[in-house]
Amino acid sequence: MNAIANDNLPWSREEFEEKLREKGKGYHIYHPFHVMMYEGKLTKEQLQCWVANRFYYQIAIPMKDGAILSNCPDVEVRKQWIVRITDHDGVGDTVGGIEAWIQLGAAVGLSREDIVSLKMVSPGVRFAVDAYINFAKQRTWQESVCSSLTELFAPHIHQQRISSWPTMYPWIKEEGLTYFKKRLTEARRDVEQGLDVTLNYFSTSREMQMKALDILQFKLNILWVIADSIMLASTLDIKIDGKDYFHQPVINF
Amino acid sequence: MNAIANDNLPWSREEFEEKLREKGKGYHIYHPFHVMMYEGKLTKEQLQCWVANRFYYQIAIPMKDGAILSNCPDVEVRKQWIVRITDHDGVGDTVGGIEAWIQLGAAVGLSREDIVSLKMVSPGVRFAVDAYINFAKQRTWQESVCSSLTELFAPHIHQQRISSWPTMYPWIKEEGLTYFKKRLTEARRDVEQGLDVTLNYFSTSREMQMKALDILQFKLNILWVIADSIMLASTLDIKIDGKDYFHQPVINF
Repeated sequence: MNAIANDNLPWSREEFEEKLREKGKGYHIYHPFHVMMYEGKLTKEQLQCWVANRFYYQIAIPMKDGAILSNCPDVEVRKQWIVRITDHDGVGDTVGGIEAWIQLGAAVGLSREDIVSLKMVSPGVRFAVDAYINFAKQRTWQESVCSSLTELFAPHIHQQRISSWPTMYPWIKEEGLTYFKKRLTEARRDVEQGLDVTLNYFSTSREMQMKALDILQFKLNILWVIADSIMLASTLDIKIDGKDYFHQPVINF
Repeated sequence: MNAIANDNLPWSREEFEEKLREKGKGYHIYHPFHVMMYEGKLTKEQLQCWVANRFYYQIAIPMKDGAILSNCPDVEVRKQWIVRITDHDGVGDTVGGIEAWIQLGAAVGLSREDIVSLKMVSPGVRFAVDAYINFAKQRTWQESVCSSLTELFAPHIHQQRISSWPTMYPWIKEEGLTYFKKRLTEARRDVEQGLDVTLNYFSTSREMQMKALDILQFKLNILWVIADSIMLASTLDIKIDGKDYFHQPVINF
């Protein structure tokens, strides 16, 4: 067997998992806006803009997961996957992730109305988040599960916020960290199921494994574009080839 | 009848048309990237990036119009609307708008492969353009027709390119302007149908007229976000709060 033929063989389960994890190099933790956030360089207005815009992503998650359930005929997979929806929406009086995000809003000085009205959501954030929901509606459930694998990299960014915010942004009330602490546990549990589905389903050929990497890249692109849009919408000092960049005002639709 | 009640009456057909035309204030002709283009300040690489990225919008148009046909039960409307698809795709050996755009690519130094491979298309452009197709799939045909009304403002930007490029970018081959000359005539004809449908359908109440303005804003947002994404992808000198912005490489999916 020659080298060319070897290149077309599927990677082992361990190699494939490693390739997926290597995609973390393009995670939005390295986006200039998130670097600034970690380094304590964001203004109160910029952080508020981020919280209000990211809320649009938060409320999309259970709809995206509903789309996955709608395409999945496997009872056992659905029984595990549904927990993601109840985690975000809450069960009965238990506070879910969406409500915890509104509390994060309060901790950075936004009213419930500021957040749930979506009036601060920038158009580029809408388009990126909607692309994620539409992907889950239009693709197989295994492809959509694979797209969720950015949660491989999420605990790191949650942990960064938990450790840096009290020092960097002492004006943020402590309850603001509840969401990240909650997700730290959930994301670690969720990723096991998502990774298992992906490693099984896409392991039939190298081509399929490459497709999984492309799908994960698509989701990384969504998070990156969200950060780009929030950066453009919230940063006052942007210079393009030395000239001031001006923003189009956010108009809600 | 008091002032408050008057505020809720529908505008006259003329007033409504004027409100729609006023939306032109937010047209991407005023986006920093397009201002730079008009002023001759873009580099060859930036213009190439714009042409390659905008191609993704060009190829989406006939699919968007197909979605409108798929939702429209009115034979007479379809008979007029279908011309938009044949304009872009061509009929038999006639060159359509998509092929004319590839020729524009050649005129700025891009190969057919550079363009049709979509390898230079930035993720933010994909999400914005896909939002336009999904809107046309999911909304009534009248709402989608209304979203096409940015063509009210298009002749101005086409004319700007036709008059400024030969002076500002003398290195661009003259055939590069064919697309814009072609659209100058087509856009003027198309807009009559789109405007007529919108003025009729949305004139039943002030609320409906406001909805039409919001839909037009949604489409303006798409064009604006496309320009934002191309600007971020192609401009080397971007400073955010005084620090260099770095780009995520375009990864095709």
